[in-house]
Amino acid sequence: MSPDALTPAEFAALHRAAELAEYGAATALPNPVVGCVLLAPGGWTVGEGYHRRPGGPHAEVAALTAAGPLARGGTAVVSLEPCNHTGRTGPCSQALIAAGVSRVIVAVRDPWPPAAGGVDHLRQAGVQVVDLPSLAGQDPAAAAAVEHAQDVNRVWLAAMRHGRPFVTWKVGMTIDGRVAAADATSRWITSPQSRADVHALRARVDTIMVGVGTVLDDDPALTVRDDQGEPVGRQPLRVVIDSSGRTPAQARVLDDAAPTWLATAESAGTGADGRVDLAAVLAELWRRGRRHVLLEGGPHLAASFLDAGLVDEVVAYVAPTLLGAGPSALSGGAVGTLSDAHAAELVDLTRFGPDVRLRYRIGARA
Amino acid sequence: MSPDALTPAEFAALHRAAELAEYGAATALPNPVVGCVLLAPGGWTVGEGYHRRPGGPHAEVAALTAAGPLARGGTAVVSLEPCNHTGRTGPCSQALIAAGVSRVIVAVRDPWPPAAGGVDHLRQAGVQVVDLPSLAGQDPAAAAAVEHAQDVNRVWLAAMRHGRPFVTWKVGMTIDGRVAAADATSRWITSPQSRADVHALRARVDTIMVGVGTVLDDDPALTVRDDQGEPVGRQPLRVVIDSSGRTPAQARVLDDAAPTWLATAESAGTGADGRVDLAAVLAELWRRGRRHVLLEGGPHLAASFLDAGLVDEVVAYVAPTLLGAGPSALSGGAVGTLSDAHAAELVDLTRFGPDVRLRYRIGARA
Repeated sequence: MSPDALTPAEFAALHRAAELAEYGAATALPNPVVGCVLLAPGGWTVGEGYHRRPGGPHAEVAALTAAGPLARGGTAVVSLEPCNHTGRTGPCSQALIAAGVSRVIVAVRDPWPPAAGGVDHLRQAGVQVVDLPSLAGQDPAAAAAVEHAQDVNRVWLAAMRHGRPFVTWKVGMTIDGRVAAADATSRWITSPQSRADVHALRARVDTIMVGVGTVLDDDPALTVRDDQGEPVGRQPLRVVIDSSGRTPAQARVLDDAAPTWLATAESAGTGADGRVDLAAVLAELWRRGRRHVLLEGGPHLAASFLDAGLVDEVVAYVAPTLLGAGPSALSGGAVGTLSDAHAAELVDLTRFGPDVRLRYRIGARA
Repeated sequence: MSPDALTPAEFAALHRAAELAEYGAATALPNPVVGCVLLAPGGWTVGEGYHRRPGGPHAEVAALTAAGPLARGGTAVVSLEPCNHTGRTGPCSQALIAAGVSRVIVAVRDPWPPAAGGVDHLRQAGVQVVDLPSLAGQDPAAAAAVEHAQDVNRVWLAAMRHGRPFVTWKVGMTIDGRVAAADATSRWITSPQSRADVHALRARVDTIMVGVGTVLDDDPALTVRDDQGEPVGRQPLRVVIDSSGRTPAQARVLDDAAPTWLATAESAGTGADGRVDLAAVLAELWRRGRRHVLLEGGPHLAASFLDAGLVDEVVAYVAPTLLGAGPSALSGGAVGTLSDAHAAELVDLTRFGPDVRLRYRIGARA
């Protein structure tokens, strides 16, 4: 058996590591999410860990702590290449070497130059390293494990690649794609179950964005609330795209529940059309350490983001109703003919009560 | 154990009977689809059958033929109450009695008066009959089996209840609910996999209907074609709703590939608005023995059908693309505010290549 060949226990551990990584999705930003499973030479799990928050232990260290001396001679299965730099915590590659781990399986290589190099460091220390992406071309099981690890870390990986926050456009609509009825009524199109999932989604991002039209129409609070409707502790930054400064002083987005940035022509800069430059807004958010924007409305702002190539993901909640009139989920933009349509890729579909949630990826894979 | 209590083998046979019933979906119309599984006293299957076509053997007779003498003392599990009348074939209740079957489990009672009464006939002959719907209130497994049997027979059951053909509205659209781009290009919004499924759907109905606008815009053939694009043998009736007789003489729907009815104001009658009366069209189709209409377009005709309460099912193929302009899947109709939206219920979601197919039920359950 080639040293690169994976056992069933190792494949299972890869998917478990991706699952573990996801536990950090609401708290790890601006860091990546990472999960680690430590297997004894016999294939059983002796430690698990994930990266919960910036400044806290990395996944490998958490798993090594759990395993103690049982890590010696074992295999570390990690969803992301172990870091090779000393930030607020020491390099994970060194910790794995010190613990006597003899084999490391890496699902995704680290694209961030300061932290990359863990694989090389491990190899120089005599640790056997399996670089899973290099096997993905020949092995569908390896490809599935790589894709799983990429998908849970999609926000951080895409942000690193593009040098801007990852943008998730969320929309709730009817079967016929309407976000409101002819008389503008829109509460509630989707079910309580879908709305609870939106709050879970908001809890995973560091920025929520709307256009001023949504503020004027709906006066949303844009806060993350729990089951009882109470705001949770950590709140994302609220951003209103508001070229000409029309947000009313008494708007709920300006309350004390969370920080807010009114991105006006003055504060954010304008494009050729005299409106707020969306790429400049994302660049400013990046500069402020923001990595994941949830774009919540409306149809015209979403079209501008799509035309600018600034949407990475679409999350659509489809309610089981039909209207026949009223604004569509996406309205305006540059697409005039079918062959120019924005292309997406269906990643996931899940029921939420009577609704279905469709998640699409836009642009290249991570 | 109560005589009504079902064994695991009997529950499995109920779902298998519903599966078998579905094998007849493309050919049984105007009859219901029916499946039958015969179990020996020990619980193993000794015969299976389904109703393939009008005039052919009923499901019970097919299963009894397969089982031969092994049916004696066994249990017949049927997706629909065995018939009690002599049409082109003899009554199935009599055949089960003659074969010595000692127990019959019925998933759905027959709502058609001339055929109903099989359960009573069986009981009078001393056969133990389990009427599954009477158990569904207390037993979730029974409820699931009843729902499965109702769902595979939904076309026939609803047609019987309403005294008109069952209407499935099929639409292919983008994520934002568009059926064409701003310049009217619409070929192809959905994938080859979805289009193949549409042909499978057409093969299961006896009538395909469009508005004259679709004929003028797209000149569709509205035939059922196989993998190679060749027309299959049995073709549904094509119906064009064409109040003022605008279908061009050279339109493809008027070719020899299938029969066609141009439902004009003259041939179908008009409603209060001077347009073709859709209920009258369905009544005429019913009179001609048609039981399942596939409504294929366009957005305004669909709205008229919905407003009239004449849609039983929505089948939406959603392509992974976004347009931002162009006609929506449903357009016009009476809904002015959200609380008046047409309500549906999600029954199934399935991927077809890059697309997803959503199937919704409208109106009461069967």
